[in-house]
Amino acid sequence: MRPSGRLPSEMRTITIDTSFSHHAEGCALIRVGGTEVLCTASIENRVPPFLRGQGTGWVTAEYGMLPRATHSRGSREAAKGKQSGRTQEIQRLIGRSLRAVTDLKALGEMSITLDCDVLNADGGTRCASITGAWVALRLALGKLVASGALPHLPLLGQVAAVSCGLTETGAVLDLDYAEDSTAAADTNFVLTADRRIVEIQGTAEETPFTEDAFNELFTLARIGVSTLFDAQTAAVTRAENG
Amino acid sequence: MRPSGRLPSEMRTITIDTSFSHHAEGCALIRVGGTEVLCTASIENRVPPFLRGQGTGWVTAEYGMLPRATHSRGSREAAKGKQSGRTQEIQRLIGRSLRAVTDLKALGEMSITLDCDVLNADGGTRCASITGAWVALRLALGKLVASGALPHLPLLGQVAAVSCGLTETGAVLDLDYAEDSTAAADTNFVLTADRRIVEIQGTAEETPFTEDAFNELFTLARIGVSTLFDAQTAAVTRAENG
Amino acid sequence: MRPSGRLPSEMRTITIDTSFSHHAEGCALIRVGGTEVLCTASIENRVPPFLRGQGTGWVTAEYGMLPRATHSRGSREAAKGKQSGRTQEIQRLIGRSLRAVTDLKALGEMSITLDCDVLNADGGTRCASITGAWVALRLALGKLVASGALPHLPLLGQVAAVSCGLTETGAVLDLDYAEDSTAAADTNFVLTADRRIVEIQGTAEETPFTEDAFNELFTLARIGVSTLFDAQTAAVTRAENG
Amino acid sequence: MRPSGRLPSEMRTITIDTSFSHHAEGCALIRVGGTEVLCTASIENRVPPFLRGQGTGWVTAEYGMLPRATHSRGSREAAKGKQSGRTQEIQRLIGRSLRAVTDLKALGEMSITLDCDVLNADGGTRCASITGAWVALRLALGKLVASGALPHLPLLGQVAAVSCGLTETGAVLDLDYAEDSTAAADTNFVLTADRRIVEIQGTAEETPFTEDAFNELFTLARIGVSTLFDAQTAAVTRAENG
Amino acid sequence: MRPSGRLPSEMRTITIDTSFSHHAEGCALIRVGGTEVLCTASIENRVPPFLRGQGTGWVTAEYGMLPRATHSRGSREAAKGKQSGRTQEIQRLIGRSLRAVTDLKALGEMSITLDCDVLNADGGTRCASITGAWVALRLALGKLVASGALPHLPLLGQVAAVSCGLTETGAVLDLDYAEDSTAAADTNFVLTADRRIVEIQGTAEETPFTEDAFNELFTLARIGVSTLFDAQTAAVTRAENG
Amino acid sequence: MRPSGRLPSEMRTITIDTSFSHHAEGCALIRVGGTEVLCTASIENRVPPFLRGQGTGWVTAEYGMLPRATHSRGSREAAKGKQSGRTQEIQRLIGRSLRAVTDLKALGEMSITLDCDVLNADGGTRCASITGAWVALRLALGKLVASGALPHLPLLGQVAAVSCGLTETGAVLDLDYAEDSTAAADTNFVLTADRRIVEIQGTAEETPFTEDAFNELFTLARIGVSTLFDAQTAAVTRAENG
Repeated sequence: MRPSGRLPSEMRTITIDTSFSHHAEGCALIRVGGTEVLCTASIENRVPPFLRGQGTGWVTAEYGMLPRATHSRGSREAAKGKQSGRTQEIQRLIGRSLRAVTDLKALGEMSITLDCDVLNADGGTRCASITGAWVALRLALGKLVASGALPHLPLLGQVAAVSCGLTETGAVLDLDYAEDSTAAADTNFVLTADRRIVEIQGTAEETPFTEDAFNELFTLARIGVSTLFDAQTAAVTRAENG
Repeated sequence: MRPSGRLPSEMRTITIDTSFSHHAEGCALIRVGGTEVLCTASIENRVPPFLRGQGTGWVTAEYGMLPRATHSRGSREAAKGKQSGRTQEIQRLIGRSLRAVTDLKALGEMSITLDCDVLNADGGTRCASITGAWVALRLALGKLVASGALPHLPLLGQVAAVSCGLTETGAVLDLDYAEDSTAAADTNFVLTADRRIVEIQGTAEETPFTEDAFNELFTLARIGVSTLFDAQTAAVTRAENG
Repeated sequence: MRPSGRLPSEMRTITIDTSFSHHAEGCALIRVGGTEVLCTASIENRVPPFLRGQGTGWVTAEYGMLPRATHSRGSREAAKGKQSGRTQEIQRLIGRSLRAVTDLKALGEMSITLDCDVLNADGGTRCASITGAWVALRLALGKLVASGALPHLPLLGQVAAVSCGLTETGAVLDLDYAEDSTAAADTNFVLTADRRIVEIQGTAEETPFTEDAFNELFTLARIGVSTLFDAQTAAVTRAENG
Repeated sequence: MRPSGRLPSEMRTITIDTSFSHHAEGCALIRVGGTEVLCTASIENRVPPFLRGQGTGWVTAEYGMLPRATHSRGSREAAKGKQSGRTQEIQRLIGRSLRAVTDLKALGEMSITLDCDVLNADGGTRCASITGAWVALRLALGKLVASGALPHLPLLGQVAAVSCGLTETGAVLDLDYAEDSTAAADTNFVLTADRRIVEIQGTAEETPFTEDAFNELFTLARIGVSTLFDAQTAAVTRAENG
Repeated sequence: MRPSGRLPSEMRTITIDTSFSHHAEGCALIRVGGTEVLCTASIENRVPPFLRGQGTGWVTAEYGMLPRATHSRGSREAAKGKQSGRTQEIQRLIGRSLRAVTDLKALGEMSITLDCDVLNADGGTRCASITGAWVALRLALGKLVASGALPHLPLLGQVAAVSCGLTETGAVLDLDYAEDSTAAADTNFVLTADRRIVEIQGTAEETPFTEDAFNELFTLARIGVSTLFDAQTAAVTRAENG
Repeated sequence: MRPSGRLPSEMRTITIDTSFSHHAEGCALIRVGGTEVLCTASIENRVPPFLRGQGTGWVTAEYGMLPRATHSRGSREAAKGKQSGRTQEIQRLIGRSLRAVTDLKALGEMSITLDCDVLNADGGTRCASITGAWVALRLALGKLVASGALPHLPLLGQVAAVSCGLTETGAVLDLDYAEDSTAAADTNFVLTADRRIVEIQGTAEETPFTEDAFNELFTLARIGVSTLFDAQTAAVTRAENG
């Protein structure tokens, strides 16, 4: 029995609110159970130095967690004067995941920064960030098309992410904090709606696991992301037809 | 005529939601017009080194702004590796303001950290932070009393803050961003419910102003904070009797 | 009775030496009792990036304290690798105060940096810095006029600052360290010679105070700055007519 | 045809020298083709604060690259004042990988730090680091057993890592720099000698890939690590039997 | 002919004022021509961690330069967030020089920090710092003896420093800025009153020099420090005999 | 008797391997007894901002030590976020020493960075760095001549460095760690093959020493560098003549 009473292949409740941010070109306040991440997409008409003059765009991400998003207060990275290795690892993952489904050439010399800030944390914040960031990115790109700045959406696909892990009750989908902190292994799957792989990060901090176990986790992930793709699509539709 | 159509002595709409944070001992998501600040109070059973063994407590604050809380994206302080002078000035102000109404002796050897994170900005973020932080602090202290950790609330008063400024339409209450960025002078008043002064910060970046103008601003502030005290009281009542 | 034996409305002895720095375009070594601050004005023929090409100038300030300016040695900010929040707050205040009396348009695309370094501290260092910085700025601008670089002084007024506070002996003018460290409240007034307000910073770290008390402090401040204006004027006259 | 002329399932030449470091408790200078990493294991009789008094040990890793290990000189992280996100991500991966095969309880209150410094880089530096670090760790633990500090090796398994990728010539094993910088996707496999998974990091920076492609890469990785396990075993045997 | 009109073996005018600092246990405001350094000695009743419990004391130094001590304004190290390599090199030199003449065992578990802050710079600031720091140290130690905290002065000798260089007019003593910035080579000699060597730092940035030239510089340095020893002795005598 | 059994005027064994680095334009892996430093020279077609447009080149150096180059592990400077004062002092020394024998005008607008990374440390790392860096620089310049980028070697001389010190057994040449950590005084001599002085850094941390002792050390240094010049010449000849 999982701590939350969920079935092994059961996702937590998902909601996506696209109107929370007053200023961003695209926004998704995504809630996956008790995890809540504010994702905003900000468009700028310039690219980083290493891309200048190449006629190609850029998508990047930054990640943060409010100090009291967690059970006990964590220290504020701005006050400590540096981002932790974990933060940098997560924001690099979000950026790569979104770039993998963006047609940077078609975007042209623009940058889109995806800020993912965790307001409440209960496990799975990096996966919720990727899932929400895709919605924010999609909406920002939609505005560029609507305004005539781009002829069509420079998107190659739809991406979402979910974590699966090996816990005392076996392989389970969508770990919450109680599961995440005691799992023998957990794996984050970043997958596309056309069933391809963007990123897989499997980690056995405590006990190395078998290929069979890995395949079991992969099967659960396929189930989980299909729910996420539906939630993303519904959110975009509501926002644009709203 | 003010950009928002408000009267000179008219506050923006205020709402305070005390249930947003899942983990904090006290919380207030305060909205003052388009400004929205998440204030959380976190209790720790220890005090900073300079207070150890003195039987007295501590109240401190940290302030941050999400990169896209503003019209155009600002850089993330955690990524830049340091807090700006403005951020430090604001968080020092919030901390002093709350300490001025806390009975630190009665609190005993505990620390309360007030995190004020701006989710959406439209002027007056430091004032909204102080006003919301008082609610978060009050609720956290209430829990200490309810749990028997403290015999009574170690609070000396109720504090709220509002900014007033000299704009093209004269002295006005509760500046929004459009007014704040063009005002000849603006003043932040941190006042108590028993009509005393905790902090006054008046600044004439562009044109020094007269004592009469200052008194006019002070009168407006008195009007503004009375609305804020009511909103605070209602929020605490709802939260505790909820 | 004040610790120094002064009357409530009595300033400490003030001297301003304008020849201490060998290289600066303007200089004031200001002594207010046991507080001693070296203020220098440095002119550069460029403005910060956010002002380039706008035909306007800039005035900014930096503040520091020698490690042993105080009773016990403080740590060196350069060695710690960052300026404290207090330092940043003070240097921002000095900059704003001087900009408020400078005609930046008339200055043209030049920057003036006011460095205020405390050599000996006995309370009131930020006020002494502002008062001395005005002299250094005035002398530097005078040289620009003398050399023909500017047709006339781009100055809108004369500014000085003094702190007043509520101590055991009531409201007093020009707090020294013994008073400052025990005052229930203290307020820094940055005022102009034509009786206008540039900045007011009133703080009740310990006990909120009444509006009447505030007005009493303001009256004392008016008395104090008139002495400071005289000292500034005399120093400028001596330096230029030397 | 691969740039190096290798077959798709062909590893580069591997050598492991365990005598390079004069002072470390364990050492492996591992060469995988043109990639050369000095891995040292350093034992300390204390654990990080979060583990104190729990009777358990710790294994951690730090990673660096000499500025001119690469084709063109990179900047020195110590001079820049911070480690890049990439560096932090890699050293966290190395640490997790080695902890997954260490019995931290059996190690007792000791820390082992694995320093992996790249002297020459030609792709696959993180995989070479993990493979070499295991040898350094194994030798350091062997010394603790030999000296009687531990009754037996606190090791749960043997771990090695290899990268596989999708290039113009299809799925290939052990990417060198020429392949790594142009691959559509690459995956790092950290595997144990008993065929279990410690970490999998698959990334499609450019084009999401199919599950079939992933399985093909996994099969190549199995081939690659078997060669690495042999090289590790031979190096340990040589080092301990002289 | 030297730019200043001095003879090759002629020092600049030296004055040492021991009363400038209001709070330090020892103080010397040393002027060597246009170079002016405020040296303070601060006593603390503890030693750095690496010396704790060994019954020995410590002497260390920190060095700084006010931003406008120089012809054109330099940036403030506290604002930049780090001390330059030059600053660190100089403060390490000052610390070593003073430790070499202090009996750290006899000092007992106390630390003395020598802060050397350059108020006006015209070449030779590190030498003036050492010479002034010895006076500040000597006076601070004298107070420890006077108060009975120490039975006798824990000083092994008297140390002073001077720079000599090879300029267009040949070998010269006590370089000022005009000479220092164009000298082919310059050497700092830190010497004791009993004719021994504490430090020699000879540098040929532009042209390597001969051993004969070095000996010529050494001879000049002997002349220079004898003047400095006299100035130090006179300053100490005046300070202690009032 | 020296700890190593060497005669007072006996150098340790010296080897220089010029093929270790795969990518650098010039390289020397220098071993002086148990001290081992990898020196690489990297050429870039640009100069630092302060030299732009002046038709002159630049030579600079960076120094580092692997964390476990020493008996007990030192902390990694990149992880601590800053280079120590010692590191900065050493890399400034290396840079000055090499610039003193380079014709920067003849080099033209190019920069050469000498990276000196200590792989194993047993005393004398800064001297080994200078000696090795000269070989790396010489080989890099040789390639510029061979490729026709320069008409002739822009070198003014050959430079090498050695440390000498006063130990319990008297004045000795080429201190190893055991001697260096207990010497009463030590001096680093950076000398040219034509018997001139580039740098002398003599330090008496513990006991000031006499001029006679200094001359004795100088005589030993002359002996030492002649061996180093031979090793440098042989290494360059082998490298260029294959």
